[in-house]
Amino acid sequence: VSADGTVVIPGASSYNGLNLVPQMGWDNWNAFGCDVNETLVLRTAERMVRYGLRDLGYRYVVLDDCWSVGRNETGFLVENPKTFPHGMKYVADTIHSLGLKFGMYSSAGVFTCGRYPGSLGNEQKDADYFASVGADYLKYDNCFNQGQSGTAQISFNRYNVMSQALNRTGRPIVYSLCNWGDDNPYDWAYTISNSGRMSGDVYDSFNRPDSRCPCTEAIGCAWPGFHCSVMNILNKMASIQSRTMSGYFNDMDMLEVGNGGQSDNEYVVHFSMWAMNASPLLIGTNVLTLSPANLAIYSNPAVIALNQDPSATAAVRKWRYFVDPDETGEGEIALWTRSLNNTDQVVALLNAANTSMMMNATMNDIFLDPRTAGAYQAPPQLSETWDVYDLWANRMSNAEAGAIINGTAMNLTANTNSTLTRYNATATSYAQGLLNNDTALLGLKVGSIAPGGTWSAMIPRHSVGLYRLRQRESKVVRRKDEL
Amino acid sequence: VSADGTVVIPGASSYNGLNLVPQMGWDNWNAFGCDVNETLVLRTAERMVRYGLRDLGYRYVVLDDCWSVGRNETGFLVENPKTFPHGMKYVADTIHSLGLKFGMYSSAGVFTCGRYPGSLGNEQKDADYFASVGADYLKYDNCFNQGQSGTAQISFNRYNVMSQALNRTGRPIVYSLCNWGDDNPYDWAYTISNSGRMSGDVYDSFNRPDSRCPCTEAIGCAWPGFHCSVMNILNKMASIQSRTMSGYFNDMDMLEVGNGGQSDNEYVVHFSMWAMNASPLLIGTNVLTLSPANLAIYSNPAVIALNQDPSATAAVRKWRYFVDPDETGEGEIALWTRSLNNTDQVVALLNAANTSMMMNATMNDIFLDPRTAGAYQAPPQLSETWDVYDLWANRMSNAEAGAIINGTAMNLTANTNSTLTRYNATATSYAQGLLNNDTALLGLKVGSIAPGGTWSAMIPRHSVGLYRLRQRESKVVRRKDEL
Amino acid sequence: VSADGTVVIPGASSYNGLNLVPQMGWDNWNAFGCDVNETLVLRTAERMVRYGLRDLGYRYVVLDDCWSVGRNETGFLVENPKTFPHGMKYVADTIHSLGLKFGMYSSAGVFTCGRYPGSLGNEQKDADYFASVGADYLKYDNCFNQGQSGTAQISFNRYNVMSQALNRTGRPIVYSLCNWGDDNPYDWAYTISNSGRMSGDVYDSFNRPDSRCPCTEAIGCAWPGFHCSVMNILNKMASIQSRTMSGYFNDMDMLEVGNGGQSDNEYVVHFSMWAMNASPLLIGTNVLTLSPANLAIYSNPAVIALNQDPSATAAVRKWRYFVDPDETGEGEIALWTRSLNNTDQVVALLNAANTSMMMNATMNDIFLDPRTAGAYQAPPQLSETWDVYDLWANRMSNAEAGAIINGTAMNLTANTNSTLTRYNATATSYAQGLLNNDTALLGLKVGSIAPGGTWSAMIPRHSVGLYRLRQRESKVVRRKDEL
Amino acid sequence: VSADGTVVIPGASSYNGLNLVPQMGWDNWNAFGCDVNETLVLRTAERMVRYGLRDLGYRYVVLDDCWSVGRNETGFLVENPKTFPHGMKYVADTIHSLGLKFGMYSSAGVFTCGRYPGSLGNEQKDADYFASVGADYLKYDNCFNQGQSGTAQISFNRYNVMSQALNRTGRPIVYSLCNWGDDNPYDWAYTISNSGRMSGDVYDSFNRPDSRCPCTEAIGCAWPGFHCSVMNILNKMASIQSRTMSGYFNDMDMLEVGNGGQSDNEYVVHFSMWAMNASPLLIGTNVLTLSPANLAIYSNPAVIALNQDPSATAAVRKWRYFVDPDETGEGEIALWTRSLNNTDQVVALLNAANTSMMMNATMNDIFLDPRTAGAYQAPPQLSETWDVYDLWANRMSNAEAGAIINGTAMNLTANTNSTLTRYNATATSYAQGLLNNDTALLGLKVGSIAPGGTWSAMIPRHSVGLYRLRQRESKVVRRKDEL
Repeated sequence: VSADGTVVIPGASSYNGLNLVPQMGWDNWNAFGCDVNETLVLRTAERMVRYGLRDLGYRYVVLDDCWSVGRNETGFLVENPKTFPHGMKYVADTIHSLGLKFGMYSSAGVFTCGRYPGSLGNEQKDADYFASVGADYLKYDNCFNQGQSGTAQISFNRYNVMSQALNRTGRPIVYSLCNWGDDNPYDWAYTISNSGRMSGDVYDSFNRPDSRCPCTEAIGCAWPGFHCSVMNILNKMASIQSRTMSGYFNDMDMLEVGNGGQSDNEYVVHFSMWAMNASPLLIGTNVLTLSPANLAIYSNPAVIALNQDPSATAAVRKWRYFVDPDETGEGEIALWTRSLNNTDQVVALLNAANTSMMMNATMNDIFLDPRTAGAYQAPPQLSETWDVYDLWANRMSNAEAGAIINGTAMNLTANTNSTLTRYNATATSYAQGLLNNDTALLGLKVGSIAPGGTWSAMIPRHSVGLYRLRQRESKVVRRKDEL
Repeated sequence: VSADGTVVIPGASSYNGLNLVPQMGWDNWNAFGCDVNETLVLRTAERMVRYGLRDLGYRYVVLDDCWSVGRNETGFLVENPKTFPHGMKYVADTIHSLGLKFGMYSSAGVFTCGRYPGSLGNEQKDADYFASVGADYLKYDNCFNQGQSGTAQISFNRYNVMSQALNRTGRPIVYSLCNWGDDNPYDWAYTISNSGRMSGDVYDSFNRPDSRCPCTEAIGCAWPGFHCSVMNILNKMASIQSRTMSGYFNDMDMLEVGNGGQSDNEYVVHFSMWAMNASPLLIGTNVLTLSPANLAIYSNPAVIALNQDPSATAAVRKWRYFVDPDETGEGEIALWTRSLNNTDQVVALLNAANTSMMMNATMNDIFLDPRTAGAYQAPPQLSETWDVYDLWANRMSNAEAGAIINGTAMNLTANTNSTLTRYNATATSYAQGLLNNDTALLGLKVGSIAPGGTWSAMIPRHSVGLYRLRQRESKVVRRKDEL
Repeated sequence: VSADGTVVIPGASSYNGLNLVPQMGWDNWNAFGCDVNETLVLRTAERMVRYGLRDLGYRYVVLDDCWSVGRNETGFLVENPKTFPHGMKYVADTIHSLGLKFGMYSSAGVFTCGRYPGSLGNEQKDADYFASVGADYLKYDNCFNQGQSGTAQISFNRYNVMSQALNRTGRPIVYSLCNWGDDNPYDWAYTISNSGRMSGDVYDSFNRPDSRCPCTEAIGCAWPGFHCSVMNILNKMASIQSRTMSGYFNDMDMLEVGNGGQSDNEYVVHFSMWAMNASPLLIGTNVLTLSPANLAIYSNPAVIALNQDPSATAAVRKWRYFVDPDETGEGEIALWTRSLNNTDQVVALLNAANTSMMMNATMNDIFLDPRTAGAYQAPPQLSETWDVYDLWANRMSNAEAGAIINGTAMNLTANTNSTLTRYNATATSYAQGLLNNDTALLGLKVGSIAPGGTWSAMIPRHSVGLYRLRQRESKVVRRKDEL
Repeated sequence: VSADGTVVIPGASSYNGLNLVPQMGWDNWNAFGCDVNETLVLRTAERMVRYGLRDLGYRYVVLDDCWSVGRNETGFLVENPKTFPHGMKYVADTIHSLGLKFGMYSSAGVFTCGRYPGSLGNEQKDADYFASVGADYLKYDNCFNQGQSGTAQISFNRYNVMSQALNRTGRPIVYSLCNWGDDNPYDWAYTISNSGRMSGDVYDSFNRPDSRCPCTEAIGCAWPGFHCSVMNILNKMASIQSRTMSGYFNDMDMLEVGNGGQSDNEYVVHFSMWAMNASPLLIGTNVLTLSPANLAIYSNPAVIALNQDPSATAAVRKWRYFVDPDETGEGEIALWTRSLNNTDQVVALLNAANTSMMMNATMNDIFLDPRTAGAYQAPPQLSETWDVYDLWANRMSNAEAGAIINGTAMNLTANTNSTLTRYNATATSYAQGLLNNDTALLGLKVGSIAPGGTWSAMIPRHSVGLYRLRQRESKVVRRKDEL
């Protein structure tokens, strides 16, 4: 913007004005791969509304790879007439009519990962196609990129072509980069896109190392690969977390919750840490067969509120110890924290070791950053009493979730008689809900930490204690450069 | 293809339509280096037919480096008149007349590795020469490349010039990249070539580390080197195996079977793991002096069928443990598996430790990928009973192989009276043979695995148990995105 | 210079004639971040004069990020009229009238790190702006650089645009690169700038590892990050120290002394090692609330004289042992030395372990470099007796520093009755003071080392023994190539 | 050559026809740094003749950095009139008149390392200058290269400009690259130069690690640095040794023998391993004060003959074990071997551990390469008896060397009455001497190895047993691709 001499609004966020908080929605890939068709997409969209997922914020229905049959004689993409018999515009229109938004997919290569036509060299035509059918979102992959990688500059230039093409369409389209962390997108993608994948593809495993995902750090990773576990991806965030910002989010990949490869506790960790790190939250399972337990995980507004917090920042791993490995050879405990927009603080006691652990978070560790941030020599955080809210305490019961699924529940998004009022982000954004002190976003108060104190909890194996800390006397205000 | 707006056939494989399964044949380099001449090549070709190797699929007779005497005054390459007195076209014609195909060699540099003229800057002239003499295959090396490396983009551009030059000749020529994994060809070479070397040169050692092959991983390797052992190269495949696809294969380098540096068991491992990983299978020994035992290894159709499976995928290393090192300081055991086109599964229990080991493959490990692949929460594989076929059980006896070699055997490829009918892939492709359930491709049934079960076997030192698993009730079908 | 054929003065130093010794001054970022305004800057400047800091050499008052409100219709930067109501020229003029120099900030990207307009693409306009308001110094950051990184060449070209733009203004402006060590600036920045950051941002911690500062070496660091501790940055200097030279200094980042996160001993280490390594010395705390103890650290002329020594070299880490870790998991002791312009030698016995240590510096270790430097087979250093001066022995008392702060002290810079005469570098440069053998620059003589001897001292936990060694008989002269 | 279509002579070596075996000579840098002048250079040249060093092959007298006073008004370099009062042509002429050749120095940067004018951007003018004064050799450094590095391509292009400029002068000038291994010159420099440094600068230490030389491997080294020990550089050769070839040599840096930092045994290791690895042999000490012992090391024709062997290959590190560290923390033993042009074999038993060791070289290890090189299944080497010659047994006595130095010896190069006839390579090349079986090149026969045998010797601490093995019955012939 400043490069061509126009007036810049200082501190403006998001290169295209979109996605000030992380995108939420559904993407078919994790569960269905190339098995896509109109029916799947539209039935899922309808079900997302019915299950209240739309109103919890899951707004983008993303059709991933394998929807195309090729290009027509003028070079425009053509949807597969067998699987999308009414055309793609019909799909988009139907999704829009449900109050949802429509996402599509291509690759910054000559083919998509499924070997369908890619957009490299056809960026404007393809952007025009996406705009013409009414897409609101583009997931843009990295397969078959003709070797256009190796420095940040090469990759930036390749992805920037589509960024500019999307802008030229005039339609607001969230631009989601999917280059797996190649050439460090977290160091350059924020001025041309709304999110960027920072690792190889997730798979439905809590912590099993896989030779196809060889890196344990995002930085300096020569081969992002795939089959990356939840813990693998989470720890890759630890060094790059500062590159999350309003309008651009580090994408930890789509959620596996519901796909059957992890325990309920492990899925809670997965969802909690993705939410806390401001990763895009894309449901990656078959919504049509969603279990009550998994619906309950996806439906926790107190955790989603972390994700949608206006601070638009990621969490910090304050410490990590390698202990007590399980059968995969992996074992660790860690403390992750995050400072929220309203000065609330998130604390996650993560137990990825093989047995239950009594874990501690000291105020010194929680408030390390204000302690070491310069002239604020006695940070007010340390002399404050903080109330502690357990963000999973009010998790929807399986009975209630089952009632939603089988349709025996009342319309819960409108029902005030339910023991659990579901949060409706369509009506009231999470930002506004937090301003309102909506109790649905707070979890259950379970204690407090006095100045100089420590929060301790017994955390089961492969589980997380996730807490929102709220100051009692409001001594703390946000620094100007945190705004 | 899509880049210039033409209609793309979705899912099309192979950039030039060739090599949908890995190339097989013979290359003189490992055994003869620069000691090449017409007689060697033509006598070898004749012997490959006589020994039935052609009809097993070894179709390309590749003349490697050192065949040239320079360039003529118009800049075209000239074959050495002393070693190729009848000219190269005569060589090609003779090979063609034997039902074989002819491969030649050059380098993407100003010299070949043997300091003969290279093709860098002369790509079209040299491609025209190769087409004019009737070559069907080009091995294209990386020596003396004038520093044109350092990013994927630089290397892609250099190799792409020859790719386009070969296309322009109009002759179908398999294009085999030999840049040793420099700049990650497994990430870009599939749209411009048919195979790509992924490591430094093999040498005839099972597992001895050599300072001239310093990397133990393909990714991030700053110096591919040479003198890489069989185990070194095999393990480099573990992280990049997903980059094997129909029309492009990760080339683990030519086979050393027969060259005398390894035990029979070790050569069986070498051949099995190359075959299983869909590496090109180029015989790299002196066929004229081939021993019965080594002919038997090269002639196992049940193992070759893995290599030529239409799935065109590589194997997955499910686990690896470092144990019990031998005198080289190396010792490991590993489980490798691969899913085949017809839903059969390959299991390799690899013992590269110093002593015999009782090894186990659980169904959970074998079917890890369907277990973690998304919505298929209860993969049918796990509730299936699998019959287990030992792929080396029917290895041709040394007596029979000796009879083939000394000509006392009948024409085995036509002989139905032999206890072992040799497979004739010229008549019936491996793909068709598998559809036919040809028993020569199945090995010997040695047991079965019940749901939840484990396959166990005692595996000798430096050896492999190689099994094809076949479902009894056909519960499993391939996912659309696996096709 | 030589590139365009003009006559070159051999051995000339500094690409623009400036900064022959490291810049000193104050920068608001560490203590105030974006909380900047005219009052803060001018009150600080006034206080620096009053506290004698200006006359100790702290000459540059640097206004960091967040001062801008955007660009005007002709594309020039505009200062924020609320926080800088009299305009930036007024700030510069006032600072100049105090005998100080004025520094400003921008980024070689489309935004500054605080998302204000960056200079990428507007280099000449912005250089002209800085010159027009009277800036004497530019700190030039690396945020939002549009992926223009990945090789030395790419980064050099990007930073060189501003270098040339500053030259074109005709105003002498010290050019301070802040690209965090990306693409090894210590290998190319000296011909286009006056200093270059060599690591991620410091934070106010002595040695705590932080996941956001993942590298422990400068070289090959794929992610400089931030939240780098004093010890982390110090050790990153060990491999690149040769790339410090007259006119270009490796910038270890601004000082945290006074910000409250470290003990007095730790701040002494921080200040000593920055000074000894010829890092720019930028006070990074709130001068308006400076404590007596911290003023005393900033005010030690014997330590500053190391920094301002005309040799313009960094120190050498002669040995390092990992011992006795503290609660952060870190523990080490090290010997650092440096040869000064007048043949004096600096010795630092650094104890970063968890307990007090008796530490030794042998003459063999101190004079390793002359011992191994070629034909000077019996370096005269080894046969010399060296007097040892403790450079912290004469540290100003807290009482005296307190008197300066609360104004009850006489004008110490002029007062010869004080027990401690403060050094006035405005009147007499450190180079001249050293020629004069000014005792304020020597510390306190505490012993001597005979030929073949060893200097030993008990060094407390997280502390340093910092000594100047001076030869008694002047056997040593500097080699011509050391000049 | 082939790139422009001209006829190529297959197998031709050396890009410019020069330096088919490694250059030998003297360079002032290690001993004198910038302390250079006409007197030093000419007196040294004269002494090299007098001491017989010229006739042993030390032919290039190289004047390193700091000889220039700048450029004249037409942009040509000008020698310093104070230190070179008769002009540079006079120096060259005088050197030529002594039967020696003259080398000069510049840098592929805007300055030399000593901040004198560099040649970047002035390549043709400077090449013309070097040719005009009569230089026969250019050492071309890497300082102040304006960030022109980061990929092989960038560095190749920069160094190639001078290569072409030298060619254009028409004068034969050996082109010696000195870019410290940056961007892997061993992978691209052979088509544009005659040798290339492969590590940071050596210093006069046998094995002490120094933080300024941080890499222990050549490959993937992000910072070559300097202060690299003899053992550090030697081991960096182990992975890249194949990139030594006729006309291009991996330069391990100038010899420190005589500079006083190592024991006599250590200097013997240094000289032996440089010679054996076909590194350029540049005397790096003060010849005017050379001790008898050091003259004896430099004067061993049996060791120099390894270096000058027409095979033009480097040695192979067959094994290396980390044992018994000394006070530097380092300790290892290793077996290095090399195959010579006449099928002789060199064996070095290197003891870099802290105590004497009985060391063994088995025939299996010595002849590993023929054993694993392909079809030669029973390499004749293994069934041969090899006579073993100790190459240091006939080292010149200190008495004799002293007599040479103080002029009391007869003209030894002509004297056949001496117990030790000095080898005269001016009269008879080493290649011819080997053909003649000149005993001066063979050392002393000390035993033999029978088929299947082992050579054992007690090797003192920090020493080497260096042997030439010669077959008794000549069963072994060289393979065509080894020629």
